[in-house]
Amino acid sequence: MPLSQRDGTGADDPLGSWNDGPTKQSILDFVARVTQAGGADYVAPGERIATFDNDGTLWSERPFPFQLFFALDQVKAMAPRYPEWQDKEPFKSVLAGDLKGILSGGYPALIEIFMATHSGMTTDEFGPAVVEWLAATRHPETNRLFTEMVFQPMLELLGYLRANGFKTFIVSGGGVEFMRTFAEITYGVPPEQVIGSSGKLRFEVRDGKPVLVKLPQIEVLDDSGEKPAAIQKHIGRRPIASFGNSDGDLEMLQWTTAGKGARFALLIHHNDATREWAYDRNPSIGQLDKALDEAAVKGWTVVDMKNDWRRVFPFQSTDAHR
Amino acid sequence: MPLSQRDGTGADDPLGSWNDGPTKQSILDFVARVTQAGGADYVAPGERIATFDNDGTLWSERPFPFQLFFALDQVKAMAPRYPEWQDKEPFKSVLAGDLKGILSGGYPALIEIFMATHSGMTTDEFGPAVVEWLAATRHPETNRLFTEMVFQPMLELLGYLRANGFKTFIVSGGGVEFMRTFAEITYGVPPEQVIGSSGKLRFEVRDGKPVLVKLPQIEVLDDSGEKPAAIQKHIGRRPIASFGNSDGDLEMLQWTTAGKGARFALLIHHNDATREWAYDRNPSIGQLDKALDEAAVKGWTVVDMKNDWRRVFPFQSTDAHR
Repeated sequence: MPLSQRDGTGADDPLGSWNDGPTKQSILDFVARVTQAGGADYVAPGERIATFDNDGTLWSERPFPFQLFFALDQVKAMAPRYPEWQDKEPFKSVLAGDLKGILSGGYPALIEIFMATHSGMTTDEFGPAVVEWLAATRHPETNRLFTEMVFQPMLELLGYLRANGFKTFIVSGGGVEFMRTFAEITYGVPPEQVIGSSGKLRFEVRDGKPVLVKLPQIEVLDDSGEKPAAIQKHIGRRPIASFGNSDGDLEMLQWTTAGKGARFALLIHHNDATREWAYDRNPSIGQLDKALDEAAVKGWTVVDMKNDWRRVFPFQSTDAHR
Repeated sequence: MPLSQRDGTGADDPLGSWNDGPTKQSILDFVARVTQAGGADYVAPGERIATFDNDGTLWSERPFPFQLFFALDQVKAMAPRYPEWQDKEPFKSVLAGDLKGILSGGYPALIEIFMATHSGMTTDEFGPAVVEWLAATRHPETNRLFTEMVFQPMLELLGYLRANGFKTFIVSGGGVEFMRTFAEITYGVPPEQVIGSSGKLRFEVRDGKPVLVKLPQIEVLDDSGEKPAAIQKHIGRRPIASFGNSDGDLEMLQWTTAGKGARFALLIHHNDATREWAYDRNPSIGQLDKALDEAAVKGWTVVDMKNDWRRVFPFQSTDAHR
């Protein structure tokens, strides 16, 4: 690779949206170590597994994870078939557009909303409904499609790792059937490399045609300690690099870095209220507290979004406002 | 590809262990259809997903699936730590070498044996124990290592499909952590493309080191209707080709062939008592009954092992006895 690609000054820098400095350098150094044939830290291509959280790591998650926008819209679309929702929480609050009312029900209310809108149909019906919604719905603050609100530096990082023989996986608390509808087009991650939360499926033959019905039972909530478990179940190999942004990613980073040989862990610190959002220790969603402390102790890379990223979103010029 | 590779007469035939005839031709025709650029049935490489059962499809399963040999040996190895097993079924029968006694307990007895021997340890401990056992243990009838008792024609088929841009997956009732220890070396299928039965895992930090503990709770029994469900959960894409040998594979083949465009389904009919084993409609393990009937109706390919395969195991010359 010519020097111009490594120091970030060349037009063909594969990490062109990353400012030069220790953060970018830590990525370049790690990749150089594990790909140098004959080097002490060389890792065979098949074992170069990299796992990425999605919400807050590959795309934004404000004011709340985007999948919840989909669920709320689905409640409204389905409401005519469920007249009892007019008087029943949390649906009543959803239909009234009362976000505070929804959130006052806490986690159980959210689960109820997700169950109602993510089950009862077949897998063949669900995917196209998500695709249609993603093509038609815009973020209330940026007026952008949600799939435009991905982080340009992370898209470059995914491509850079793959160009260096890494296999890139998503390991997210988001619903796996939801994410797979856009992960390949948006991130270059094929469906079989997307791991997420999921509900039970039931095989049925309907009118001679086999279908998989999405049941209202959670099978996996892919967060915190469930992330390493899901990695083991799906990949069967410990990642050598993991990327996250919240305490829900801590166990994944611990699991990754506890393996032998060269390991890499990175946390994105959302500290850019101008171009994206600023939050860390005290939000209700996407809290980065314990993991930030552990990163300092263990020397993990922490992305200072404000200073490390030349641009945040693909549609922004550098230094743009969101 | 030169003709010599397509008609099975050339030394470099990628399917050299398959006799010429309709069975081999059905494979060649299908691959030609989905790989011909611009053809009506062309499938992009990323969507060329092929799923294979393991026991009875990629290796033998007589007198019972090989993983049970491992479980029985583990019971014997663990017995000193469990003195109560001397008087407690099914362990008592295992320790007495009384296979009939074990099987008289039916399915619940087998589950109890698997739970006792496949949980309680960490994932980092379990894998090496399997590797050690596979390297040291021989099949009681052939005196071969179990990993030698794989089907040479199927190894060639896996390689042929991959050479034509297919991604090959195992989808088996066998334990996923068990199969992954040899699937890459033996079949060329990396861990992340092995799907199987699995137990729950619990993330723990022990002495500052994260581990995944294998719990005595079944999470997935990957058989029958659970196979399409597991395919959807892990791969997220419908296979275009599936390969099995028993009624437990029927739903996977139904799910595969119900998709749009060119589809391929193949069943292996074990009818070769000389070189391998002969069984179909009435064994307790590996029954091929309903699926054989459906194959006839739907025109799926059925391998007549005796006549379609020039050799069965890699260690055999053609026409050898097992």
